[in-house]
Amino acid sequence: FCCQPFVSILRGKLSNNGHDMRKVIHSVKVGVALVLVSLLYLLDPFYDRVGENAMWAIMTVVVTFEFFTGATLSKGLNRGIGTVLGGGLGCLGAAFAQAVGGVGKSIVVGIVIFVFGAGVTYTRQMPKIKKKYDYGAMVFILTFNMIVVSGLRADQVLELARTRLSTIVMGFAVCIFISLLVFPIWASDELHDSLISRFELLARSLEGFSKEYFETSNEKEQKGSANFSSNCKSILHSKTRDESLVNFARWEPWHGKFGFSYPWGKYLKIGEDLRDLTTIIISLKSCLRSSTQSSETLRQSVKEPCQAVVSSLAWTIRELGESIKKMRKCQSEETIVPKLKSVRIELSVIVNPSTIGTDLENTDGLGLVS
Amino acid sequence: FCCQPFVSILRGKLSNNGHDMRKVIHSVKVGVALVLVSLLYLLDPFYDRVGENAMWAIMTVVVTFEFFTGATLSKGLNRGIGTVLGGGLGCLGAAFAQAVGGVGKSIVVGIVIFVFGAGVTYTRQMPKIKKKYDYGAMVFILTFNMIVVSGLRADQVLELARTRLSTIVMGFAVCIFISLLVFPIWASDELHDSLISRFELLARSLEGFSKEYFETSNEKEQKGSANFSSNCKSILHSKTRDESLVNFARWEPWHGKFGFSYPWGKYLKIGEDLRDLTTIIISLKSCLRSSTQSSETLRQSVKEPCQAVVSSLAWTIRELGESIKKMRKCQSEETIVPKLKSVRIELSVIVNPSTIGTDLENTDGLGLVS
Repeated sequence: FCCQPFVSILRGKLSNNGHDMRKVIHSVKVGVALVLVSLLYLLDPFYDRVGENAMWAIMTVVVTFEFFTGATLSKGLNRGIGTVLGGGLGCLGAAFAQAVGGVGKSIVVGIVIFVFGAGVTYTRQMPKIKKKYDYGAMVFILTFNMIVVSGLRADQVLELARTRLSTIVMGFAVCIFISLLVFPIWASDELHDSLISRFELLARSLEGFSKEYFETSNEKEQKGSANFSSNCKSILHSKTRDESLVNFARWEPWHGKFGFSYPWGKYLKIGEDLRDLTTIIISLKSCLRSSTQSSETLRQSVKEPCQAVVSSLAWTIRELGESIKKMRKCQSEETIVPKLKSVRIELSVIVNPSTIGTDLENTDGLGLVS
Repeated sequence: FCCQPFVSILRGKLSNNGHDMRKVIHSVKVGVALVLVSLLYLLDPFYDRVGENAMWAIMTVVVTFEFFTGATLSKGLNRGIGTVLGGGLGCLGAAFAQAVGGVGKSIVVGIVIFVFGAGVTYTRQMPKIKKKYDYGAMVFILTFNMIVVSGLRADQVLELARTRLSTIVMGFAVCIFISLLVFPIWASDELHDSLISRFELLARSLEGFSKEYFETSNEKEQKGSANFSSNCKSILHSKTRDESLVNFARWEPWHGKFGFSYPWGKYLKIGEDLRDLTTIIISLKSCLRSSTQSSETLRQSVKEPCQAVVSSLAWTIRELGESIKKMRKCQSEETIVPKLKSVRIELSVIVNPSTIGTDLENTDGLGLVS
């Protein structure tokens, strides 16, 4: 449990793998943030001011420091807002309980805790809240409860809330500083790169399919197939990851090529279109598995036009990916679409074109979206 | 922010929707757990024994009480193990720093915090650890840090760790008691039901496709299509949810029809097969959108055998779903497979069977899996 990470770190440093290197950078950043925030405890001048509340700064760093800068920002702000709201309402609740006094005090506190606990827990489960503010709602319940019950014992609830909040802000500041300024790891870059790489994967899958279909030997099939399927499935199951990355990317400030109000929503839309295309390629692939295959002569007769279409399609997909990568309008769109259409008509003369026709239909759709 | 949940609770109670009712139950359970754990603060005999550490019990309830019993168990155990390990190693680290003494003490603490913080953060990012022990690793870092830095100030680190741990155990006990014994919401039930409902959805999608294909009017198409697509996509994007439900279900003790070492892994496999089938139906569907369609006469000539195949397939899928629901071996498997095969041969005489043949191929696969 303890040695493994260090072995892995060494291995990560030796390999040139970008993702592993980022993991190492993230780990070192977390380590540095923890040391910085521990200084509140270690150095006497700091400790004299914040005391035991320094604990909350450590907690904030451990809990909010995430891999992507956007995730750290989103979690930190959620925590901040949750703490302020929970603390504020908690103070009101505690003051109200104090005003009641006597045995009623405890009863009022119990009722208030139940009502807010159950109510906010219900709110947390609404899909919209769950997606963006789940963590904030949890922190709200936590802070609210603690302040309300502390109010019964401590005389200065407000003072307690203030110091606690200030240490949380310190912890958050350390997180933001290190996460934003020291080798930032952007969710936006990750999303952008993963979308572009999916275009390449799709083009390669399409070419792989055509190669396999027109190949006569069955030997090479097995190896390529597994690779092909895993490629396609990785595109197909990208939805959840895309959504969370977009969620983080929205929080990230202007940086590199991504300006303010960058249209992140379109990434979701393009991702959806890519998944639709992948569905078709996967189902084409399953035709290969079928026991009833079209005859060798028929295959050979459509080989040339089919391969022409496939290579045009693959080229188009790559071109679209490239234009997203370079963030420019796809220039070849006007030339490629009529070309593909003419090849399709040529094809439909030769065979019943239901399957291949579909492909073209969808690529047109993709061209319009991008 | 505050009124919405109560309005929703009322609406949830009025509607007969099972899922909404479960959400209300969960919210009430969380409320009750919070009140119970707050008694540590509210009642003097308790408070005299645990003091400010009662805070940790509240935190444990807020953080570990999840919707599904399995999730609560998994998070609670992660928290417990993380606290024990982090606390233990933290005590060792603090003792070591004390032994060094002087200025070196703070430096040793700083180095120890950095090494453990960075190392465990790196470990957290490994896919296997991230999936199951992410929360435990986070709690480990948190507890370790707190104990190590507290060790510099407090004289009795061990006493501190002991009280803190005992309040965490109290909080966890309240969570487990309420989560397991009061209207438990099982992840296993959810997984089981969602798998069965996907069989039904798949059968309905298949029937919807055949109806649409053989219908001559284009009017009804639009409405059915949207429904059809969203059904299929909900099956296609079930992977992440399935995986997390299986993860929780494994933690759940024997209950209802699910015994110990129930084969939850097979749910993932069947889910994967259902997604493969859905891929094919979606791509069949996109044939409808294609501009080049087979002629009306050709369609009418294959209408009867095609509809026979589709209804047999839909029946088979429903039968398989039903047998999973009732947890018995599917009895009609021996009769249905030869029947489907004979219909397929019949069909392949009439048309080029590449698309429809695929369907049958895959259903055979499904039959073998279940």
